[in-house]
Amino acid sequence: MEEQIDLVGKAFADHYYHLFDNDRPALSALYKPSSMLTFEGQKIQGVEDITAKLTSLPFDKCRHVISTIDSQPSTLTGGIVVFVSGSLQLPGEEHHLRYSQMFHLVSTLEGNFFVQNDIFRLNYG
Amino acid sequence: MEEQIDLVGKAFADHYYHLFDNDRPALSALYKPSSMLTFEGQKIQGVEDITAKLTSLPFDKCRHVISTIDSQPSTLTGGIVVFVSGSLQLPGEEHHLRYSQMFHLVSTLEGNFFVQNDIFRLNYG
Repeated sequence: MEEQIDLVGKAFADHYYHLFDNDRPALSALYKPSSMLTFEGQKIQGVEDITAKLTSLPFDKCRHVISTIDSQPSTLTGGIVVFVSGSLQLPGEEHHLRYSQMFHLVSTLEGNFFVQNDIFRLNYG
Repeated sequence: MEEQIDLVGKAFADHYYHLFDNDRPALSALYKPSSMLTFEGQKIQGVEDITAKLTSLPFDKCRHVISTIDSQPSTLTGGIVVFVSGSLQLPGEEHHLRYSQMFHLVSTLEGNFFVQNDIFRLNYG
């Protein structure tokens, strides 16, 4: 069970950042109307507003490099909490931006996961 | 509602780190047998093992200084997810250790919260 949780968390994180870096509007499929995103302290709710935020960030191209992924079952929801640390590389920027992000994934009736809670913070040194 | 979530998240984080810095064994009251802690990638479950881990860290005294607290309702559980960034100051160490930590708080039948999920990571620069 523990190992499966890790595999699911890793598969989700790989998928999420692949979409973010290559097809950002497609991230909308991972959220539901109840989803919440807190991005650098700004609170956003719902698929449309979250997608609008993510696609209007002040950079077009970026690359996420994952450093660590920690996953645990979210017992009461049949979901998973996934905690990621990594770095965000922007074109023309010499330094990478370190970040931490947590996702609370919840199961749909069809057995897929969606992102109920998403909190993103850059790590200032 | 949103504001209350923030107040509860802040009250929890203040309480948690106050206990951690001043009466670490008392943190056991915040966990249940189902609780999970992942500490720098090490997975630990249950009150006794989590308390043993936290009280056997290789420093007696420490001080947490919180930088940011982001809280969101965990809709399906009536709980809260709390995401904290901050720094950990150890005695005799010149540099502070930056960290990120997430808590998934779940309600007890009595209406209190306990920590169901806890993930801690130091931020390496």
